[in-house]
Amino acid sequence: MEELKSIKKISEAFAGRKNELYGQKDEGRKVFGLFCTFVPTELILAANAVPVGLCGGKEGTIPSAEEILPRNICPLIKSSFGFKKDKACPYIEASDVIIGETTCDGKKKMFEHLAEMTRLHIMQLPHFRDDRSAKLWLAEVEELKKLIEEETGNKITEEKLKEAIDKVNNVRKLFYKIYELRANNPSPINGKDSLKLFQLSYLLDINTIESVLEDLVEELEERVKKGEGYSGKRILIAGCPMVAGNTKIPELIEDTGAVVVGEESCTGTRQYENYVEGYTIEKLADRYFKIPCACKFSNEERIERIKELVKEQNADGVVYYTLQYCHTFNVEGALIEKELKKAGIPIIRVETDYSESDKEQLKTRIEAFVEMI
Amino acid sequence: MEELKSIKKISEAFAGRKNELYGQKDEGRKVFGLFCTFVPTELILAANAVPVGLCGGKEGTIPSAEEILPRNICPLIKSSFGFKKDKACPYIEASDVIIGETTCDGKKKMFEHLAEMTRLHIMQLPHFRDDRSAKLWLAEVEELKKLIEEETGNKITEEKLKEAIDKVNNVRKLFYKIYELRANNPSPINGKDSLKLFQLSYLLDINTIESVLEDLVEELEERVKKGEGYSGKRILIAGCPMVAGNTKIPELIEDTGAVVVGEESCTGTRQYENYVEGYTIEKLADRYFKIPCACKFSNEERIERIKELVKEQNADGVVYYTLQYCHTFNVEGALIEKELKKAGIPIIRVETDYSESDKEQLKTRIEAFVEMI
Repeated sequence: MEELKSIKKISEAFAGRKNELYGQKDEGRKVFGLFCTFVPTELILAANAVPVGLCGGKEGTIPSAEEILPRNICPLIKSSFGFKKDKACPYIEASDVIIGETTCDGKKKMFEHLAEMTRLHIMQLPHFRDDRSAKLWLAEVEELKKLIEEETGNKITEEKLKEAIDKVNNVRKLFYKIYELRANNPSPINGKDSLKLFQLSYLLDINTIESVLEDLVEELEERVKKGEGYSGKRILIAGCPMVAGNTKIPELIEDTGAVVVGEESCTGTRQYENYVEGYTIEKLADRYFKIPCACKFSNEERIERIKELVKEQNADGVVYYTLQYCHTFNVEGALIEKELKKAGIPIIRVETDYSESDKEQLKTRIEAFVEMI
Repeated sequence: MEELKSIKKISEAFAGRKNELYGQKDEGRKVFGLFCTFVPTELILAANAVPVGLCGGKEGTIPSAEEILPRNICPLIKSSFGFKKDKACPYIEASDVIIGETTCDGKKKMFEHLAEMTRLHIMQLPHFRDDRSAKLWLAEVEELKKLIEEETGNKITEEKLKEAIDKVNNVRKLFYKIYELRANNPSPINGKDSLKLFQLSYLLDINTIESVLEDLVEELEERVKKGEGYSGKRILIAGCPMVAGNTKIPELIEDTGAVVVGEESCTGTRQYENYVEGYTIEKLADRYFKIPCACKFSNEERIERIKELVKEQNADGVVYYTLQYCHTFNVEGALIEKELKKAGIPIIRVETDYSESDKEQLKTRIEAFVEMI
């Protein structure tokens, strides 16, 4: 099987991204740093600004973060905070404004500390899915629009917004196409390469992503035609984001000979599922409001969606993955485990951080799970 | 020094509370179980119903809770959940409806599991303090009013609401009076007895509380006149609630010979500070909205208030107390530590659960702190 050229291309693009981003800044474009897939990037693009994901996936900056933050909060939060504290991330340093949100207690309160080091704007993401909450969220999106316009000096016209919505929707469509192609057996792409796409799409320029995904779809279609790809037990990962630097779970799974066929994750389905169904700010807010994240109270939709994903991808089982001390995904995990078992879907729950120390133990558990299903 | 009769009286009242509560149910009064000091009890009282606090402070029910909930969430949440799971708490069993809220990730998601065992109504507590959030909270309070009226069949008239507001304000005033009396040196009451008041006030009938507090104020005034009470290093506790069953921190502090002179806590100031400043539902919602809990994003008011409390009570130092895995109070603790140190106020941060296992270690740390200040 030939190497996927698009995956090589995306790695190369990443190698040049730092310089490209600072070049975009030099051209006068503002950079908005983001910590969550709930932030509508369309608004940033419509103002000719650059969105860039800042979530940390590396262990290295955690000890520094722990000088301020408690040890027992999630590694993603600590890693991200440490990157800013140590000025160790060019994307954070390039950010003119960082957009935070209230998705979880740890992030919400970490932002209070981050506010002492950088310019922050926090969006209130409500806990509920009701009309009152939708209205509050719309107001938050409108406020973000205003902030972006003020910061960039560029008005977000209807025309510009439409362009940005079409662009991001197209990227979603391409991601979704790849997801669909992975339903084939063998799957034309493995979980490690797929994750690279999701991770780097938060960092790269949207045009680069779009072009890579277009090429990749062609390459994968070719593989499907030839019947090439990855066989083995088919695994859906569900749970917390796996941001750049953190590839632990798909590696552990695929090292057993299994293949990851989908990610119910912010580095996965929550990123590309559901389009913005119109060109108004209301429609934009609505698409993001519906993201089935564990931060919402009462999340039946997420449970149902996981069951569907299993069916769509012909998955043999689910690895439910929680970052350590992530209460929302962890507590919801028990409900999901119960419902999946009821539906006869094998599931294993793993909780881990960014360290190497639990790898052997996880390997043993995941191997046993894959063998059993 | 003579024993405080009111403290004896409140313990006796507690011994009879279970029967009294079931008697109130037999009279047709509805019981509303609560998990948070954010829930406006005035509405419940105005409908001739009975509010009762359900937060668990005991270790015994935690192993059962951990069959469903993760080990690494806060002991209060696990203990409470275990009490319902094991049907081990007469107050939970007596509750016709349980009112939950979205104060933290752990509780918010625990309620999804609790919903499978009991009738729940969840109030959305917004993350922010802005006008949008205040409006959302008012709507939540109005919805609660409707629910209580429907459940009890009693209309909450202006007259009834006024009565209830006056009653609860009066209890707050009495608590505040006791707080003020504790500013004396020696302090006429210690932290262990004070905590009993706060804890049991969530469980007992409001008329009992009111009458006990009235008597207690007299007793304490008498002590102050005589110059009787507790001397020693004066400590303010700040942080998480210490609910019935959990007396670890004041015991550890006062075993060193120090005396607790205030509690910045849901079992303390957050319970009785700030009155409802009028008789409308807006004024009621407003009082609760302002509670300076760590669940809110950006909590400068809380930091300032802690400094004031230290001054008001002539405290020598602050024991900042976090329940294990409580991200909000824990992460905010670092900000508070920094600000207090800047102001020259000694502070020690302790994180603990409901077990006995860390007692020796905490004792050593707290002893050293008390000696040092």
